[in-house]
Amino acid sequence: MSSSFGARLSALHGPERLCVGIDPHPSTLESWGLSDNAEGTGEFARVVVDAAIAGGIRLIKPQVALFERQGVSGMSVLSNLMSSARERGLLVIADVKRGDIGTSLAGYAQAWLESGSDFEADAMTAVAYQGVGSLEPAFSLAAERGKGVFVLAATSNSEGWAIQSATTKEGDSVAQRVVSDVAQRSIRAPHFDSEWLGVVIGATTDRTQFRLGDSVLSGVPILAPGFGAQGVSLKDLTVRFGSLSANVIPTVSRSVAGDSREGIDQRVSAHFGEVQALW
Amino acid sequence: MSSSFGARLSALHGPERLCVGIDPHPSTLESWGLSDNAEGTGEFARVVVDAAIAGGIRLIKPQVALFERQGVSGMSVLSNLMSSARERGLLVIADVKRGDIGTSLAGYAQAWLESGSDFEADAMTAVAYQGVGSLEPAFSLAAERGKGVFVLAATSNSEGWAIQSATTKEGDSVAQRVVSDVAQRSIRAPHFDSEWLGVVIGATTDRTQFRLGDSVLSGVPILAPGFGAQGVSLKDLTVRFGSLSANVIPTVSRSVAGDSREGIDQRVSAHFGEVQALW
Repeated sequence: MSSSFGARLSALHGPERLCVGIDPHPSTLESWGLSDNAEGTGEFARVVVDAAIAGGIRLIKPQVALFERQGVSGMSVLSNLMSSARERGLLVIADVKRGDIGTSLAGYAQAWLESGSDFEADAMTAVAYQGVGSLEPAFSLAAERGKGVFVLAATSNSEGWAIQSATTKEGDSVAQRVVSDVAQRSIRAPHFDSEWLGVVIGATTDRTQFRLGDSVLSGVPILAPGFGAQGVSLKDLTVRFGSLSANVIPTVSRSVAGDSREGIDQRVSAHFGEVQALW
Repeated sequence: MSSSFGARLSALHGPERLCVGIDPHPSTLESWGLSDNAEGTGEFARVVVDAAIAGGIRLIKPQVALFERQGVSGMSVLSNLMSSARERGLLVIADVKRGDIGTSLAGYAQAWLESGSDFEADAMTAVAYQGVGSLEPAFSLAAERGKGVFVLAATSNSEGWAIQSATTKEGDSVAQRVVSDVAQRSIRAPHFDSEWLGVVIGATTDRTQFRLGDSVLSGVPILAPGFGAQGVSLKDLTVRFGSLSANVIPTVSRSVAGDSREGIDQRVSAHFGEVQALW
């Protein structure tokens, strides 16, 4: 796989962009009859990855918090999961939401984007409370290594609104500012022709509340978690995102995991069918 | 150590609050003559912790990004470092800057605050781009387990200003909003009488730019990284923080690490002396 994350993402269209989240919640492990430890977490992840591959899925998004809670062995399980999934041809977006400044941010970028590192993914999510500019070391490393970065812009939880809708000195909302700062950088060589740099916008987010109209987001890849289980069906994707829909990576997690491993192949197929019907 | 982080912090006064950062930067490892791997990182951390203890330091703050970049074995080194330091009586503030929502945030809280977990610290730092309310699972667990949480409010890097100074619908700056949301929660039982919940404000931050006057911050514990190496001497602590100074946890990292392990005891003593002279 010598081509970059951005180039590979840009080659995926319509239903091929459906991303399956790997979210080993304690409640999911329990309902699956698995132990709430690193072994149970690893077993859950293996079953979901197998079902994703069997169902023609090309992108997965492990929620790192749910591996980190299992300690060192949980991080080891995550490392094995990501390397095995990448060897099998999946694109792995590590949902780590890291953010910091300077050499600390560079440390996170090395952890998740450096070739040969234990936690090497194809792309990572990042948080810009310290400014999109503070994520520069991750953008540089991503550009060098052919990786991707998705910066949190607007989220669907009600507590996020006050901060993300606040008005900057230039009159933008915080979420708008994040998107425009990301959009400016996404045209940088050598990956300017591909979708290596994007934003995260929750599937159930009311974009108008954050003044994130279509023009602000035009051409920006959008990772959109929360389809399926948070009250928004994949069928609503094109209603929610309109002309931006082709740039969206819709993500389903809980509704794929369900309450047991039984039927997971069918749940993946059903979701794939829903997205397929849109295009 | 059955008493809570907040109670133990509240029992520390003046120079006893000096916190030593454990920041195994690649450049520091190199100048110390250590390998840029988990072993070198662990050796650096051991020397700094020994020097801290020898110098009467009570608080340390490992920068987690610089362990995470060393992969699974780096996280194992961090786990050993934190448990050994805690056994030796130090209070450990894990500088992880985690942020997310719901069960994911709960996962991070379990990783860093749960009793007996691999990464158990006494307190953690967190980021509230998704709202202070999204950190509720960490506050709850901290209150139950006698741990601490410090939420990023205002930072000294120039790229952070646009977002942190943005104006919310209520007319506060984002940084103010974070501080007031934290202050509201910090009075919660069973730790209302102690400093279990605070904010992070960079040592070199111009607070007026973020409208973080003394009244907003009154009574809120302030973790203040960046003394020593970013152009602000510990001698300026009381000038910078005025009447709030007693609530500040000043943190020194690079100026303690220096360019080699030689002289680290003296560097710790010198910093301790600087804070001592203030009180």
